[in-house]
Amino acid sequence: MKTKKRTVLMMLAIAVVCSFAIGQAQAKKADPLPSWNDGPAKTAIMEFVRAVTDENGKDYVEPAERIATFDNDGTLWVEYPMYTQVLFIFDRVKKLAPKHPEWKTKQPFKALLEGDMKTVGASGEKGILEMGMATHSGMTAAEFEKTVSNWLATHKQSRFKRLYTECVYKPQLELLTYLRANGFKTFIVSGGGIQFMRPMTNKTYGIPPEQVVGSSVVTEFQVKDGKPVLVRMPKINFINDKAGKPVGIYEHIGRRPILAFGNSDSDMQMIEYTKAGKGRRLGLFVHHTDADREYAYDRDSHIGKLDKALDRADANGWIIVDMKKDWKTIFPFKEKTK
Amino acid sequence: MKTKKRTVLMMLAIAVVCSFAIGQAQAKKADPLPSWNDGPAKTAIMEFVRAVTDENGKDYVEPAERIATFDNDGTLWVEYPMYTQVLFIFDRVKKLAPKHPEWKTKQPFKALLEGDMKTVGASGEKGILEMGMATHSGMTAAEFEKTVSNWLATHKQSRFKRLYTECVYKPQLELLTYLRANGFKTFIVSGGGIQFMRPMTNKTYGIPPEQVVGSSVVTEFQVKDGKPVLVRMPKINFINDKAGKPVGIYEHIGRRPILAFGNSDSDMQMIEYTKAGKGRRLGLFVHHTDADREYAYDRDSHIGKLDKALDRADANGWIIVDMKKDWKTIFPFKEKTK
Repeated sequence: MKTKKRTVLMMLAIAVVCSFAIGQAQAKKADPLPSWNDGPAKTAIMEFVRAVTDENGKDYVEPAERIATFDNDGTLWVEYPMYTQVLFIFDRVKKLAPKHPEWKTKQPFKALLEGDMKTVGASGEKGILEMGMATHSGMTAAEFEKTVSNWLATHKQSRFKRLYTECVYKPQLELLTYLRANGFKTFIVSGGGIQFMRPMTNKTYGIPPEQVVGSSVVTEFQVKDGKPVLVRMPKINFINDKAGKPVGIYEHIGRRPILAFGNSDSDMQMIEYTKAGKGRRLGLFVHHTDADREYAYDRDSHIGKLDKALDRADANGWIIVDMKKDWKTIFPFKEKTK
Repeated sequence: MKTKKRTVLMMLAIAVVCSFAIGQAQAKKADPLPSWNDGPAKTAIMEFVRAVTDENGKDYVEPAERIATFDNDGTLWVEYPMYTQVLFIFDRVKKLAPKHPEWKTKQPFKALLEGDMKTVGASGEKGILEMGMATHSGMTAAEFEKTVSNWLATHKQSRFKRLYTECVYKPQLELLTYLRANGFKTFIVSGGGIQFMRPMTNKTYGIPPEQVVGSSVVTEFQVKDGKPVLVRMPKINFINDKAGKPVGIYEHIGRRPILAFGNSDSDMQMIEYTKAGKGRRLGLFVHHTDADREYAYDRDSHIGKLDKALDRADANGWIIVDMKKDWKTIFPFKEKTK
């Protein structure tokens, strides 16, 4: 009797432990994307992940081939009203100005230092690039990393009064986690500077530096005072934007993604390239439609213009994620809506 | 009594299972590098791995920072008497010659087609590069990958009569596995073409394409017949050799390795860069000293010259791995020694 009682008790204990474990598993499984509202976008994502991870299904993809690429500006973190890196460039020009008296008379440096943003804007991409080169080169890799880290740790986004690394989209953090939990390797593929992003991507998105693809300046190996260092040169190495994105993916990753997520026409080639692969693929764009909680912009925007991609989305089966409708929560911090 | 007996039996069973498991674990732990002879090189490697993985030690390194980079030619697979990729180039020139009547009169193509290897050799790096460009471009990324895969699946190393992917060093395969088992992320950092290596690195070394860093040609995104494709252009993008290796590491990996393994002076900068980081680091060179089992070459070799690095090894604490002394077994296949 004693033995039998003990056995029964043990079986009971096992049953309790098991049901607890199963309960836990189900609770976790219930909704991996709680910041996403139910709707076609969420359904498309979850159905895609289910299909490519179903070993018995026709759309099964080996874990090693589950490559997902995400744009950064406007897709993972706020890009409006101005790309974070451009604000960094402006700030660096102001900071370094005392060492560059020549900037007092040289455009667009002169305009920026005088606060004449209209002239800065008129200098266009070329002007920004020139200031970018001046502030992103002439130092070692280690020095640049330190400068970026310090800047990101102290400067805040204009509307939300939070660090830029806090102004990231909660639904996307959940999606990155969900994809990784399903065997995906997640990459950033951004037009932004690769070494500008790397100091923050691991902590912010769980994406390590080796999984960041971006634009770059030429770097040189030099020996300075007997120490080998990498020196950043004032010369563009690669622009990882638009048609550059598939090229960057080929160079850096060497496999075609099965899922790609962007937010603007600049991401269109990455998504075309992704979707052109064999087997099941998913291409998505964030559509910024929420002026109350974030920003609303698309076709005529000076930043992250989403125009052709909107027109072509339906025909190509691209998923347009409507921020207002599809995202229950936008930021990890408590939002103040109007 | 019955209960007690059962308990004793169960405890005995548990003890047997546990001791078996521990035995297994110890057997495995006993020697993760069975193809390495005991000696200073093996000791240096094992002591290094122990130190950087010891959470209570002063040399502990977080798993994420455990980056190990390996050269490929002469470090992971045979490079003698000629780099595999150069033999691929020669072969492709011969194969494509009917479509290029102009090669009949153009050097060094003419010499190669006529079997005049002396003239080919005299054309030097420039000549090889020219033939490389002609055979590595003008096709899509997918087409090139297929060509490389087919070639590697059908061509054999001249001495060992084995596929090139079989002529890999067993001690290094063990080392790669050992490092990964200790939380390292293993990368190839080679002067060879990045897209020439990628089709074989995963299967051969367990290194996925995204962890391969190499030289490259410029690639362009194009839309052909409505399909997005990547087209390889006859223009050098990056030479990932000598001083290019630390640059390639910075661009591609974005962290400094803590262990780097090469075999020639071309790997010196990678190893200098690795060793110049803070904390404990390990730099190693394979020294090809075994004419019986593989090849013996160093200072005056036309391939994989190991000269300055040999002179500087002691002063810099670089480990010279003497193939003859340090490697018990060289290849995964059964060796025929003289």
